[in-house]
Amino acid sequence: MPVNLTSPIAADLLPVNGVLLGTAEANIKKPNRKDLLIMQIAPQSTVAGVFTQNRFCAAPVIVAREHLAAGKDIRALVINTGNANAGTGELGMASARVTCAEVAKLLGCEPEQILPFSTGVIMEPLPIERVVTGLPACVANSKADNWFDASQAIMTTDIVGKAVSRQLKLGGVTVTVTGIAKGSGMIHPNMATMLGYIATDAAVTQSMLQKMVSQASDASFNCITVDGDTSTNDALMLIATGKSGAAVITNEDSDEFKKLQAAVTEVATILAQAIVRDGEGATKFMTIKVEGGTSAAECKQIAYAVGRSPLVKTAFFASDPNLGRILAAIGYAGVADLAVEKIKLYLDDVLVAEKGGRAASYREEDGQRIMQQSDISIRVELGRGNAAATVWTCDFSYDYVKINASYRS
Amino acid sequence: MPVNLTSPIAADLLPVNGVLLGTAEANIKKPNRKDLLIMQIAPQSTVAGVFTQNRFCAAPVIVAREHLAAGKDIRALVINTGNANAGTGELGMASARVTCAEVAKLLGCEPEQILPFSTGVIMEPLPIERVVTGLPACVANSKADNWFDASQAIMTTDIVGKAVSRQLKLGGVTVTVTGIAKGSGMIHPNMATMLGYIATDAAVTQSMLQKMVSQASDASFNCITVDGDTSTNDALMLIATGKSGAAVITNEDSDEFKKLQAAVTEVATILAQAIVRDGEGATKFMTIKVEGGTSAAECKQIAYAVGRSPLVKTAFFASDPNLGRILAAIGYAGVADLAVEKIKLYLDDVLVAEKGGRAASYREEDGQRIMQQSDISIRVELGRGNAAATVWTCDFSYDYVKINASYRS
Repeated sequence: MPVNLTSPIAADLLPVNGVLLGTAEANIKKPNRKDLLIMQIAPQSTVAGVFTQNRFCAAPVIVAREHLAAGKDIRALVINTGNANAGTGELGMASARVTCAEVAKLLGCEPEQILPFSTGVIMEPLPIERVVTGLPACVANSKADNWFDASQAIMTTDIVGKAVSRQLKLGGVTVTVTGIAKGSGMIHPNMATMLGYIATDAAVTQSMLQKMVSQASDASFNCITVDGDTSTNDALMLIATGKSGAAVITNEDSDEFKKLQAAVTEVATILAQAIVRDGEGATKFMTIKVEGGTSAAECKQIAYAVGRSPLVKTAFFASDPNLGRILAAIGYAGVADLAVEKIKLYLDDVLVAEKGGRAASYREEDGQRIMQQSDISIRVELGRGNAAATVWTCDFSYDYVKINASYRS
Repeated sequence: MPVNLTSPIAADLLPVNGVLLGTAEANIKKPNRKDLLIMQIAPQSTVAGVFTQNRFCAAPVIVAREHLAAGKDIRALVINTGNANAGTGELGMASARVTCAEVAKLLGCEPEQILPFSTGVIMEPLPIERVVTGLPACVANSKADNWFDASQAIMTTDIVGKAVSRQLKLGGVTVTVTGIAKGSGMIHPNMATMLGYIATDAAVTQSMLQKMVSQASDASFNCITVDGDTSTNDALMLIATGKSGAAVITNEDSDEFKKLQAAVTEVATILAQAIVRDGEGATKFMTIKVEGGTSAAECKQIAYAVGRSPLVKTAFFASDPNLGRILAAIGYAGVADLAVEKIKLYLDDVLVAEKGGRAASYREEDGQRIMQQSDISIRVELGRGNAAATVWTCDFSYDYVKINASYRS
C-alpha cells in the first residue's frame, strides 16, 4: 500500500483557466478503465517540457519533441496508458503521428499542434485503432473541472492517482497551479521522469517557462528512484495558459518568476514524492540527504547509490538496522577521494556511524526504533565542503518482485 | 537453489604442492560451522592480488594491501567468515593486526608475512577473542588435501562451496591450479570480487603474477553481478609456490605464461560463474554478451545495465518474455550516441528486436520457450564496431528479498 499517501480528493483539485480535460475507456490493454486523456489548452498558451534521456525513447517522445521544436501554437496533449509505444520502430512512429492527426481533426487544428504521450508495456504494438476510436469521447466529455479523472486515466501500476493544486497571488491576481503525474515502477528519472503535467493560468514566455520546468524537474522528479530503471517514456510538461489576467512573466530575476517557480516546484515535488510513496511494493518512504560535499553532483551520486542499493532497500523492508550496508553503498558510489573517517551517518537524529565505524554512542535499539517508522530520514555528512543533495526512495519488498514478475499477465 | 551448480567433490580437488589448509569452528557468528581458515604457503612463494575499490574497504583489506606492499615473504593467509570487519574504524584495524600477529606467533614468522581477510556482516565489531582462540586448531589440522573444507569455511549465504582444480604441462612438468571462492550477495565486483583464492605450484615472478591475477580477474570476477552492490571486502589472491619444479615464468610473452594464464583464467571464470549460479535467490543464470561496440568498456557498460536492472531480472524470474525491459536498459546505459535502429537483440538464437522495435520474425512462443530454461543467453549486437564484452548474472526472486530481509537474524 502507498506509504502515507492517500488518493487526492476531486473537490481539492482546482481548475486552471484555459485547460479542459476529457477521458475515455478505450480498452487499450484492459476493459472498464479510463486509459485515454486529451488535455486541451487555450490558444497562445506556452508549453515547455523535459524528456527522458533513454536512447530507446518512445515514439511519442520523439514526436512530442519534434512538435514542440516546430514552435506552433500547441492546442492539446493526448496521453494513453496501457502501452508505451516504445521499442516499436517505424510502426510506432506512424501510430504516434496518426494519433496526433486524429486529435487535430477533432479539434480543427494541425497535427503539429498536438503533443502525444504513452505509458505502459514496452515493445508491443500500440493498438492504434482502439486509441483512434476512443478519441471522440475524450473531446465530448471535456471540462475544466476534470483533473481527478485525468489523474486516474494515466495510471499504470499506480495504486492511487497523483494530483495537487496550489494558488498564489501575482501582482494582485490569483493564479492557480494544478498538476498530475503517474508512475510507480521503472522509476529512476534522468533529466525528467514518468509522466507529469502541470498547468497554470499565469502567463509566462516560452523561454522563461522552459527554465521553470527544468529547475522544477531537477529539484523534484530528478531526485527520486524506485528501482534504478530509467523509463523510455519519461516526460514532465508545464503549460501556462495566461488566462488568469496576471502580467506576462518575462524575466527570471523578477519576483513573479520566483514566486511561480516556487509554486511549480512545490507541486512537482509533491507529485514526485507521491510516485515514490506509491512505488511498486513500497512499505517505507526514505529521504536521503547527503551534506558537506564539494558539489551537489557528488552528493547526489552518493545519495543515489544508497537509494538504489537492493541490500539497503531490503534491510529497510525488514526494519532491520543492518546499516553497514549504507556505508558500503557510500563507499562504492564512485567518489574516488572520499575520506571515510570524516563521514557521519545519521538515521533521523541518531548518530549511527563516524570515524570509519559505528558511533560509540549508537545503540541498536535506537536504530531498531527508527527502522519501524514508515517515514525515515537518512543523513550523510561528508565533511569536505558545503554542497548538499536530497533523494527520495522507497524500500524493496516481496511485492516489488511479485508486481514485476506478473506485470504483463 | 543454485542454478545448474552442484557442490564440488572433495576427491576432485587436487592439492597444490606448497600449500597447507587448516580450518576451525570458532563460533564467530554461529556455532557448529567451520568459519576460520589458515592457508599456509611455502617459503619463497609469490603472492599477488586485486582488492575492492569500495572506499569503505574493510580493515583486513587495508592490512593485506600494506603487508603485500612491504614485500616480505608471505607465509600464510587467514580468513574468517561471520563478520566482515568493515566499517569498524580503528578497533577493526587493531583486530586485523592482532589476527596477523597471532598467526605469525603460531607459525614462527613476522606479522607482515600474514595476509588477513574477513567476510560477513558489516559495521559490527569482529569478536577478536573468538578468532584468536580458533587459530591454533587451524594450524593443528593443516594438510595439503583440504581444499574442500577450506571452501566450506569461507561461505556466508552461499548454499554450496565453490572450488575447482585444473592441471597442465609446463615444459614437460605437470602443474596444478586449484582455487576456491565464496560469494552470493553484495556481488558487483569492481577490480576484484568476493573472496577468491587460487594457488598453483608453478613458479612465477611477482610482477608476472600480478599481471596474471589482474587479467584473470578482469575476465572472470569483474564480469559478474548479482545485485549491483560492490562489497567492502572483495579480494582475489593468486599464489604461486614454485614447488612443481617447472621453470620460473618471467616473461608475459612466453608460451608458459600464456598457458598458465589460460588455466588460471579458466579456474577464476568457473568460480565467478559459480558465485552467480549460487546468487542469493537465483533460479536462472544469464549470459549477457554485447558485441559490435566501439570499445569493450561501452559493451560492458551496456551488459551491466541489463544485468543489474531489477525489471529485467524479475521478468526472467517470472519466465515472462517482457523483453522491452532489455531495450530500456540498453537505452539508459549511458552510451550517449547509440543508434537504436542498428541494434539487434537475441535470446539464445532467436532474433527478438531490430530496427528499433520487435523483429517481424519474432514469435512470443519462441521467447516463452527460451525463458523457461535455467541457462539463458542474451546477445546484443550494437552494429558500430568490433569490440565485445560478456557479463554473467542471475534473476531476482522473492528469495533474494527474503534472504536479505533476514540476513542478520
